Parts: sequence; structure tokens; C-alpha cells
Amino acid sequence: MEFKHVLPADIERTSMKIIGGELEERGITVPPENEAVVKRVIHTTADFDYAENMRFTEDACRKGIEIFQKGGVTIVTDTNMAYSGISKPSLKKLGDDAHCYMADPEIMEAAKKAGTTRAVASMEQAAKDYPDSLVYAVGNAPTALIKIAEMIEAGLRPLMVIAVPVGFVNVVESKEYLMDTCEKYGIPAIAAMGRKGGSNVAACICNALLYQASNTLDPSARGWKG
Amino acid sequence: MEFKHVLPADIERTSMKIIGGELEERGITVPPENEAVVKRVIHTTADFDYAENMRFTEDACRKGIEIFQKGGVTIVTDTNMAYSGISKPSLKKLGDDAHCYMADPEIMEAAKKAGTTRAVASMEQAAKDYPDSLVYAVGNAPTALIKIAEMIEAGLRPLMVIAVPVGFVNVVESKEYLMDTCEKYGIPAIAAMGRKGGSNVAACICNALLYQASNTLDPSARGWKG
Repeated sequence: MEFKHVLPADIERTSMKIIGGELEERGITVPPENEAVVKRVIHTTADFDYAENMRFTEDACRKGIEIFQKGGVTIVTDTNMAYSGISKPSLKKLGDDAHCYMADPEIMEAAKKAGTTRAVASMEQAAKDYPDSLVYAVGNAPTALIKIAEMIEAGLRPLMVIAVPVGFVNVVESKEYLMDTCEKYGIPAIAAMGRKGGSNVAACICNALLYQASNTLDPSARGWKG
Repeated sequence: MEFKHVLPADIERTSMKIIGGELEERGITVPPENEAVVKRVIHTTADFDYAENMRFTEDACRKGIEIFQKGGVTIVTDTNMAYSGISKPSLKKLGDDAHCYMADPEIMEAAKKAGTTRAVASMEQAAKDYPDSLVYAVGNAPTALIKIAEMIEAGLRPLMVIAVPVGFVNVVESKEYLMDTCEKYGIPAIAAMGRKGGSNVAACICNALLYQASNTLDPSARGWKG
């Protein structure tokens, strides 16, 4: 069996080149401002459907990069898997953080008491803990997205929402509701519309923004020595 | 916006029914012995390509279930994300375990010294630590699969290999090499052929087997009180 001799460091670059070439072959044009996110999602899934199913509120990527560059942000995920996938070195470099409440006994208890899902209880707790510095990244539970949209209607202003739950029940509708709500209230949001998505996709979109934020960071702006 | 009123506990059942129905509509017949795995992968990705791209060595699912039911197995993953996604309650119930070496400083050091990837160094370390009780679950690195196949050629006998890296460079070829090698040496293996896969898919295949193992476990066989 013959394998291509590609240095580990070059694999990502080579992959992105292949993805770019195939997008061209398929006649798909991704707006340049969304390209880094869309290509990274395709890189994570090998699924070109994402070239056409992603929805961005106006300037969502640029705004997301700026949000992460300011620092002090906490990304709250609805699965420990998504949490695991988010680049910790990039968060650290930017002065941001990530958290997942799903395994907390208090959250299990709160969900049980309220007759709701742990994902919903997690989103509510995040809104209490980080009302002004919160980015939601949802890769699994449509109930979490619905709750976030309801909290936005009620006055919550998360800095950004990544909305990519996957599945067959209420997933399609929850993303439409969330994206319409974010557009209405001017909250930057990125979604994969339709059924597709997942914890890996949620982490990957965060990383696409974090990498860009981290690579274009002006160290002097944060008082760092580089 | 109207949402379907489905109890959390019923969402999975409803989803599986939808998936079954759409497989039928598409005229796709999944062999009954592989159905639980294939359907769970579609449930995790909302991607019906997996109904046709998965490859199983003979009786891989039944053998996998039996392996996990015996207990004492360690699943070693090539990402912390896949590790996070594997059901810890099921592992515990069955007396099995999971581990990921990717963040270990010793592994980083070993990889650097050998001029290889951390994934390769992880697979090698796993072979040393669990030579007789090892299930590999690879959702990211084709280099890990190639190393596993080489170690099998050299005499290693993992109990099972889940082979679902995703990507554009050496991924297709690495899965073919691994599956051919596993077939040659009678090692149960499950792969998603082609480019698709991922850490979520690796965890999901493990869980499909673990859930079945756990649900059909005879407690008396392990001396448990149930």
C-alpha cells in the first residue's frame, strides 16, 4: 500500500487546497469572509453539504473574531465532547475560556427538578454565570437552542451563538428559530441549517474563529510581550 | 415556531424510527447484525452516506459486543474528543475502560524524539500498556491506523479496531490497509470507508457496541447483583 508522503504540518494545508479545488469543481462559491469557517467544517467532516447549508448573520465571522480577540469570553457548550474539541492553547493565548456544565451534579438536579433536559439547565446556568461574556456553542441539543432563543427574547444578550445541533427531531426548526431570533436582536450567529451538525462541528467552528483571532492578534493591544 | 412535543426519553426512539423509514425509502438494506451500529452513526451525523460506506469484518458487531461483555477491555482513542464521547456509565457497568494518551507530556516527547505524530506514539504506548486487552478507536489520524496495521503485521493482536479517521490525505488508503490487515489476521474491525468519519463517529460506534453489550449483559455471568 502506497501512502502520500506529507509532513504532519503540511497535511492541513494540503487538505485545505484539496477542499478549495473541489469547491471550485462543484461550482460552489463561498463568500470570502466565511471561507475559513466553511472550509474547516468540511475539513472536519469531509462533507461538502456544509458548503451550502451554513447560515451566517451579517458579518458573523468578523464579529466572532473580534469578540474572541477582546478576551474574557467564556464559550459554553452543550456536550463535553464539544468542550474537548475546542483549542485550549488558542483560548489561553486570547485570554478566553470554555466550560461545559453537562456533568455537574447540580445541573442534573436542576434539570430533574424542572422536568427539563440537562442541556437546557446548562444554558440557563451559563446565562446566570456569564451574562455579559458568553458565547454559546451548541452541537447536540435542539432544546438548548430553543431555550437560548427564548432567553434572548426575554433580554439575554450572548456575545455570539454557534448553532449546529444534529438530528431528526426539532433540530431543523430549532435552528431556524434561533437564527431568526439572533438576526432580530443583532446577535452574531453561525448555524448549519437542516439536520446536520454535531459536537465536532461546534468545536470546529469555534476553532476556526479562535485560530483566526489568535493569528491576527496584535500582542501590543493586550499589553503582552508576544 | 411550532416544535414537536417529544419527551427527551423518546427522542432517540423517534429518531431511529425516522432513520429506519428513510433507509427503506432509499431502498437501502442494512444487514440486521450491523443495523444498531449503522443507525447510530446516522443518528450521530444525520448523514445517510454511512448506510453505504461502512465495512465490517465478519461478525464484527457480535464479536465486539462479546469483547465488551467479558470486561477488562481498554478502549484507546486518538483524540480526547472521542474519549469524551464514549459512554462512561456503560464502560463502568461492563467493567471496561477507555483512555486517551494525546495530551500526555511523555507522548509529546516520544513523538518529537521519533519524528512521528502524537497519534502514532499513542498507539504504540497503548500496545505496550494493554497488549492483550486493547480496542483501538481511531477517529482522526490516518497515521494511527497505518501504525496499528504495521503492529498487527508484526504480531500485535488488539481485540478490535474501530477505524474511522476523517480527511483528505491518506485517509482512504489507511482504512483499506487497516481493514485488509484485520481481515488477514482475523481481528474484528469496523470502518467507514472513504473520506468520512470523525471523533464523534468513533465514539458513536463504541457506544453502539457498549449499549448492546450492556443491555444484553447477564449480571450473573460477572458475579454482580445487577
